[in-house]
Amino acid sequence: MSRNPDWVKALQPSSPQGHELLQQERSSSKLAIEPLSEFLFGREAIERKFNVLQVLQSEPVFNKSQNAFDGRVQRFETALARAKKLRRLVVKHGWKEEDRRIAAELIGEPLPYALHEGMFLKTLLEQGTDEQRKLFYERAEKYEIIGCYAQTELGHGSNVRGLETTATWNADDKTFTLHSPYLTASKWWIGTLGRTANYAAVMAQLIVDGKSCGPHPFVVQIRDLKTHLPLDNIHIGDIGPKFGYNTMDNGFLLFNKVKIPHVSMLARFSRVDPKTNQYIRPSSPSLVYGTLTWIRSTIVMHAGAALAKGVTIAVRYCAIRRQFRDMDAPDSVVEEMPVLNYTLVQYRLLPLLAATFGLHFTGKAMMELYQENQKSMQANAGKGDLLPDLHAMSCGLKALASYTAAEGLEVCRRACGGHGYSSFSGVGGFYADYVPTTTWEGDNYMLTQQVARYLLKSARAVLNGESTSNDTTNFLTTFRSRSDSAPVFDVLNFDADLVQAFAWRAASMTFDALKKRDDQKMAWNDLLVDFYRLSKAHSQYLVVKNFFESLSALQTAGSLGTETPAVFRKLFQLYTLHTLDSESSDFLLSGAVTVRQIEQSRTTIMRLMKEIRPHAVRLVDAWGISDFQLDSSLGRYDGKVYEDMFHRASELNPLNGITIDSNPNSDVLFRSVGGENVKSKL
Amino acid sequence: MSRNPDWVKALQPSSPQGHELLQQERSSSKLAIEPLSEFLFGREAIERKFNVLQVLQSEPVFNKSQNAFDGRVQRFETALARAKKLRRLVVKHGWKEEDRRIAAELIGEPLPYALHEGMFLKTLLEQGTDEQRKLFYERAEKYEIIGCYAQTELGHGSNVRGLETTATWNADDKTFTLHSPYLTASKWWIGTLGRTANYAAVMAQLIVDGKSCGPHPFVVQIRDLKTHLPLDNIHIGDIGPKFGYNTMDNGFLLFNKVKIPHVSMLARFSRVDPKTNQYIRPSSPSLVYGTLTWIRSTIVMHAGAALAKGVTIAVRYCAIRRQFRDMDAPDSVVEEMPVLNYTLVQYRLLPLLAATFGLHFTGKAMMELYQENQKSMQANAGKGDLLPDLHAMSCGLKALASYTAAEGLEVCRRACGGHGYSSFSGVGGFYADYVPTTTWEGDNYMLTQQVARYLLKSARAVLNGESTSNDTTNFLTTFRSRSDSAPVFDVLNFDADLVQAFAWRAASMTFDALKKRDDQKMAWNDLLVDFYRLSKAHSQYLVVKNFFESLSALQTAGSLGTETPAVFRKLFQLYTLHTLDSESSDFLLSGAVTVRQIEQSRTTIMRLMKEIRPHAVRLVDAWGISDFQLDSSLGRYDGKVYEDMFHRASELNPLNGITIDSNPNSDVLFRSVGGENVKSKL
Repeated sequence: MSRNPDWVKALQPSSPQGHELLQQERSSSKLAIEPLSEFLFGREAIERKFNVLQVLQSEPVFNKSQNAFDGRVQRFETALARAKKLRRLVVKHGWKEEDRRIAAELIGEPLPYALHEGMFLKTLLEQGTDEQRKLFYERAEKYEIIGCYAQTELGHGSNVRGLETTATWNADDKTFTLHSPYLTASKWWIGTLGRTANYAAVMAQLIVDGKSCGPHPFVVQIRDLKTHLPLDNIHIGDIGPKFGYNTMDNGFLLFNKVKIPHVSMLARFSRVDPKTNQYIRPSSPSLVYGTLTWIRSTIVMHAGAALAKGVTIAVRYCAIRRQFRDMDAPDSVVEEMPVLNYTLVQYRLLPLLAATFGLHFTGKAMMELYQENQKSMQANAGKGDLLPDLHAMSCGLKALASYTAAEGLEVCRRACGGHGYSSFSGVGGFYADYVPTTTWEGDNYMLTQQVARYLLKSARAVLNGESTSNDTTNFLTTFRSRSDSAPVFDVLNFDADLVQAFAWRAASMTFDALKKRDDQKMAWNDLLVDFYRLSKAHSQYLVVKNFFESLSALQTAGSLGTETPAVFRKLFQLYTLHTLDSESSDFLLSGAVTVRQIEQSRTTIMRLMKEIRPHAVRLVDAWGISDFQLDSSLGRYDGKVYEDMFHRASELNPLNGITIDSNPNSDVLFRSVGGENVKSKL
Repeated sequence: MSRNPDWVKALQPSSPQGHELLQQERSSSKLAIEPLSEFLFGREAIERKFNVLQVLQSEPVFNKSQNAFDGRVQRFETALARAKKLRRLVVKHGWKEEDRRIAAELIGEPLPYALHEGMFLKTLLEQGTDEQRKLFYERAEKYEIIGCYAQTELGHGSNVRGLETTATWNADDKTFTLHSPYLTASKWWIGTLGRTANYAAVMAQLIVDGKSCGPHPFVVQIRDLKTHLPLDNIHIGDIGPKFGYNTMDNGFLLFNKVKIPHVSMLARFSRVDPKTNQYIRPSSPSLVYGTLTWIRSTIVMHAGAALAKGVTIAVRYCAIRRQFRDMDAPDSVVEEMPVLNYTLVQYRLLPLLAATFGLHFTGKAMMELYQENQKSMQANAGKGDLLPDLHAMSCGLKALASYTAAEGLEVCRRACGGHGYSSFSGVGGFYADYVPTTTWEGDNYMLTQQVARYLLKSARAVLNGESTSNDTTNFLTTFRSRSDSAPVFDVLNFDADLVQAFAWRAASMTFDALKKRDDQKMAWNDLLVDFYRLSKAHSQYLVVKNFFESLSALQTAGSLGTETPAVFRKLFQLYTLHTLDSESSDFLLSGAVTVRQIEQSRTTIMRLMKEIRPHAVRLVDAWGISDFQLDSSLGRYDGKVYEDMFHRASELNPLNGITIDSNPNSDVLFRSVGGENVKSKL
């Protein structure tokens, strides 16, 4: 920390000032922010967030100003303090799970208890018997024990069946022996395990009477409850620094023939009978299937908000930053243009701004469908008709949504020019912490096979006349019945045609893939690239469809007047035409559009951007992301970008407390005042 | 640091072992690595690199094992020690500039002297008079003074004319006054400035007699040569942490009316006459123009190698990592597939592998052209005919090459699955340190306007029959003469047609843009997206052309036999068809290819990948990137991936030396042995 001399303190940014510019932006659009936010998120959620924010901001431990400077150990220490404080606030204020989740989102860094609060509790609750819930869940809920969910191994991530950790049933003393036969059997990437957890839910290959029964979950104590040291024959540690997520202690875990009692195997669905020593198979595998679908749906739901953080920062800063004069301006104009007025900047940011809303509406629809399915499952003794659709949709949309958000955050960072690269922009950290979402809960590329499998199956049913009616079989049937007449959709004049064109492309690609697989008997592996394209096409159709359907809700909301729905129609068109242009070869191959339409859509995109541009700042304001959450010099609501950048660099940066010796022939590196100079490394 | 218990030390990864798998990969291809490396890089460069590597590896300060764990201040300290040691090695071994650059590349992190060694010395040498060279350059060359190049400001990056720092000529005492009138005038992002430099070459607006004469360079002492503290009325500091590049002290700098003598203004091209107090204009602006072209050419030259680091890591690891069985395999097969056998992994990595070579050949051709131009300029008193072409090519290719390398590195990281996310993969750091290349030396998006301007100008000359013959005017002329007959190129059967199709597309887009600008009088700003596409199209044509031309050199090299050139032909086709497919709408709009050809090219891409796959490991081996340089668990030459990951996480990771208290109700965060527990934050 250092202080600025008086003459520096007296300096102002050159005019126009950032706060004036954002003020102008906000007054040049008549979009009604408050009713729009309320339409998007609901009054209750907005109030809840406001209340949680007030509490967090009054606690010094949540002050983020040192985050950018701290090393890994310091960051973990602070994150642990924050996790503890958050837990105490939950107790103190009687916060619900939803409040806790909002708080974690506002704090904005992965906290060391996260996997305890998420997967560990969920696993105990869903897969434990009543006895096991009493024994483990009740203590875990009160944080008397802290757990994690240990599935992935050093040698195996996606493929659960390939896990190497074993749990061997000992018929003689009615115990299991947990063992890691290879180095690659080490549990790896396990959040909350590295330093924090004293319990783990461990996925291990169950072996009964010499036969493998596949992976099953076991609850195991791993650290002493008093000393917090690992128990005998258990080796645990943090796996080291990562591209992001460094406030989390992702860990490793090895077992050397550790005996655990019979009660350790979570036995709600399958178990070992201690009397007969027989393995008893799971009664309802589809419930587990449901959990994964739920997790993926929340990723879809969250992707719009994740991307909106980057878009908010980039749009605000690009409205303030000025570079160069307009190339066609007369010489008399000396003023530089706000960067956001350049079409090439708009082209990068405005389709992403549109995407935040498209993803938001899609996430909402996805969650509603999930709830609907849960209800129908409860009504039908665990059987949900919607489950196959829901599963496929959640796979494809998880991949598309997380890809869009991750890529988009990086586009936003780069659109901020050099300053986007500074940690004070905030965007780099968001990207680094978000990007693993593209890999976990099903790798985005792997998942596309699930979607393809579902679409091929649906297409086969349509061909055989065996299909039940749903959106997928409907668009496949439509395609079949109309493919001879090869319609070209009027995508530039009718929004409904635009949606139809997306359905047509997905249907056409489905039948192409089916032909290759069923008629030409092509190898599955040789079709993976086709399947990837197909899944993307289908998921893009779903986003476009949900975005389109939300337009009528916007119109009928009443509170929004006419201008807001009109702008959202343009956002829908921009997102959709931009996607169409990016994927044009698919559309052309399917015959849904012509080359001329692609050409014209590019002109339309330029027009739409011009029309959306004046509303850009208000549209990001509608997301309602607080300065506390953004923690960004560039994205400040008040536009005081340069003052904040300078303050952080000059006054908060610990490197500026150090004076070096720059002479290459001097062994001194850092000069210290009143102590020894640092020269140990030379 | 901690130690593994004996039972952990005894563990091995499950079979097959990584080193066996890489051995198999290497023996399944007959590509001759050594002659290939020699063809690509030349024997001299390979030997030079080998010799420098031996020296670096014997110096403990270059041991990289703590890099991933150190915080910013520690990393800077180590980088400073390394910079000093490198300087001493240069003196000790009499290394040439080329050796120093190789060493810096092998060390693999930005070093604090870098801007002194690059831009500061270059600026003094090129823009100083003889007197100034004696005064500044000679001392700087001996590291008696350490400088930086201070151009960019907090409020202005790309637009040099918008700089706010002023240098006002004082006619009375023949001095200049350097001043920062606003906070936004603060120099910002200046490498080597934050902590290291005691001199700076400062770009400031020269004001003579109340009139602005535009930005000019001034050499200024900024820190005391003994105490290293900033001089009076100068405020300097490090700008804080960044997304990458954290071993560099990018700095800020403010002046409060600092007087400097007349000799401070670098006066080779323009100056203030102290007798008449008149400003004298630059004699030859094109020389400065030449420097930027040189810098951009080196970026093109370097992009292939930068990308190759990521591709090497990803290809080797994906040859070792196994997940899932082949979906079509009979049940009897239990073995999992190496990830690199999945076509969806190949689709991500093999076109990038091809791109490394395409970029390498293009960079080489670019440097040769630059040298040719330098010769012709020396022969023609500073006038180079090739300069406009060279300038445009360097702008467009800089943008394409750095974009390809940056995006590609991130694709490589993600292709490594979860482990790609670990710092031990190495790829994340490469990406973070490389990605500013897309912004500096001309923002990639901004630069595309230069290319468009050049192509429009060339097209106007062709239309007016005023063009001189060069490659650009030739393909534009060809397009004009043949556009009525609208040829479709046989891109799937003739490589030369493939190159022609790329030229055709670029020409077609050039004339389209010209029509919009000159006939339809569209605003420049409304054409920026078209210009961006046009620049990309032209640069892709250049890469394809250079790649194609290198194929004959490979064939005639003799030493390479027949298999290597045949594989390179496939790499050329893969890169080119993959680009064609990605950009298909441009090609379709230009009429160069048909929809059916796009469809077929996808099939050809799948075939090419299958044929290239067996050579993948040998091809990355040919890049000859040492383990020392990669510093990656995943990319090790010997394939000992899991052993290395585990060793680093378990034994080198400082977080594992800390025991926490995980109870939320305990104020203790870190428990210490024999001291006070850490609980300060709660």
